[in-house]
Amino acid sequence: MDKVVIGVDIGGTNLRAASIDRNGKIVSRKSRSSDAKKGIEYVMENLISLLTEMIADENISGIGIGIPGIIDVDKGILTQAPNISEVKDYPIKEKLIHELGSAIDVVTENDANCAALGEWWLGAGKDVNSLIILTLGTGLGGGIILNGKLWRGVNGMAGEIGHMTIDPDGPKCNCGNFGCLESFASAEAIRRMVKEGLRNKNLNTILRNEIRHVTIHDIPEIVGKAARIGDKFSYEIWESFGKALGMAIANLTNLLNVEMIIIGGGLSNSWDLFIASALIEARKRGLRAPMEYVEIKKSELGDDAGLLGAGYLALMGASNNR
Amino acid sequence: MDKVVIGVDIGGTNLRAASIDRNGKIVSRKSRSSDAKKGIEYVMENLISLLTEMIADENISGIGIGIPGIIDVDKGILTQAPNISEVKDYPIKEKLIHELGSAIDVVTENDANCAALGEWWLGAGKDVNSLIILTLGTGLGGGIILNGKLWRGVNGMAGEIGHMTIDPDGPKCNCGNFGCLESFASAEAIRRMVKEGLRNKNLNTILRNEIRHVTIHDIPEIVGKAARIGDKFSYEIWESFGKALGMAIANLTNLLNVEMIIIGGGLSNSWDLFIASALIEARKRGLRAPMEYVEIKKSELGDDAGLLGAGYLALMGASNNR
Repeated sequence: MDKVVIGVDIGGTNLRAASIDRNGKIVSRKSRSSDAKKGIEYVMENLISLLTEMIADENISGIGIGIPGIIDVDKGILTQAPNISEVKDYPIKEKLIHELGSAIDVVTENDANCAALGEWWLGAGKDVNSLIILTLGTGLGGGIILNGKLWRGVNGMAGEIGHMTIDPDGPKCNCGNFGCLESFASAEAIRRMVKEGLRNKNLNTILRNEIRHVTIHDIPEIVGKAARIGDKFSYEIWESFGKALGMAIANLTNLLNVEMIIIGGGLSNSWDLFIASALIEARKRGLRAPMEYVEIKKSELGDDAGLLGAGYLALMGASNNR
Repeated sequence: MDKVVIGVDIGGTNLRAASIDRNGKIVSRKSRSSDAKKGIEYVMENLISLLTEMIADENISGIGIGIPGIIDVDKGILTQAPNISEVKDYPIKEKLIHELGSAIDVVTENDANCAALGEWWLGAGKDVNSLIILTLGTGLGGGIILNGKLWRGVNGMAGEIGHMTIDPDGPKCNCGNFGCLESFASAEAIRRMVKEGLRNKNLNTILRNEIRHVTIHDIPEIVGKAARIGDKFSYEIWESFGKALGMAIANLTNLLNVEMIIIGGGLSNSWDLFIASALIEARKRGLRAPMEYVEIKKSELGDDAGLLGAGYLALMGASNNR
């Protein structure tokens, strides 16, 4: 029988899992809410119940889990996870082996790293050997593939593209630094720009009525819709979002001369609103030669990039992609 | 007999060469002026005469050449070299094989990449697997070693750290972009800061008398001496030089989570003047965890890093470090 693994994407809202064959075909899917705000123990309880069901259904040889946080991959410990409550050095792998048995290999990895692997294996980057993905969501994550392997750095912390300083005098970021890319190109950044703009009582924008009582997750879509029907303020927000992204694209290309930069994450749905200003800025700031060789592409796998990449790690075994 | 190679460092002023054994020991040295301003044909003539002498003296199996420019390594073509006149797609390797015979392997590589390899092989980075070098000279070059190999990128252009935007509204750089690291942390940058400062007639600085009729190569040393005897303006120049460097160190560490960042090149002699402000800025802007793991060190090989790295490439053969 063909080898089948489970790829999991742990999100702030939902746990999404798929059983995946060795060709990357999704055989089945399951999901449930993650309860991330209630704390890591709730997330684990939901995860174990989800995995137990899937293991009962199929002959599973390995599980790969993408997690939004900093992970000690060798030990399978979740060191930090800003979007899951009460996480500090949580031993995910040990816990799962304890609950599911040691017959199934478990691999854990940062979610943006998984997205990079997924796109490289099956998506926008399947024909290249080196790529960088920027995942645009509440924050901004990153993953780097060099020579067909994930570049994890000495402690598995590489790829923190969101915390590249792009304006030394820019707004304060959650990380403590000022002017990080994430504070210009993420849902958090859009919320900030809307809030700052609306302080000007004379600003004419339909957002003034639309934006009340909504959560951060809804803001980018609202600002996107407004931009698409001609709200100038909303359009300019996406333009400055794109400009920041373009600056990062230029820096990354100058530095690593990769073949491709992929824009993924939920906010990549607004590609049409930010890509023009991103490309203009990138070509203005990047060196001619490496910029000529780099392709800038939208994620092809969308929401599935992370769980497919996690599945890839499970298929390869932990050691093979380090 | 032991394998001996020649490592060459082509500089704007001098050609420096050494014969090197397999342990990295320098057996002999020769140098002469490069005549880079007269054009690439003069450089090549000097280089060939230098190499011919060295080959006559010893049993040489390979030659590695570090060049300040963008190189097509596979073909041995120097694509661009801002500090050597009249260079456009110059076939260095072909020319050398034509003149010296095909019995000796010739490898060409960017000079900052050679410096990275040299420090990794024998210098500050000899105990680590991943490092980045920043070479501070007229401009600012960079080289990246990951997993004990040079990361050259898809076209051999990786490592252009000098053209990372660190202030989007900063001064115009030679590359056409604004606010590149190189325009804050290089001899060119120091010249600019001195010039801008001296426009203020009320500024009290000993540089006003010292700085006339000197070339760009002398400026950093003069500003260094002035800073060390208490000239406040000169001290502040090095502080802002360090601050820019610190911002780049934070960005690089967040992005690549390497074990070490090495500061090399001629201006690293002013280490004492810029390192404090560099480290303060780096720790302010970098993420806590990767910053804890990265070591910031001064080059140990100094001027010899490049020719030793070029020698390493010759010892390994062209294909082994790609």
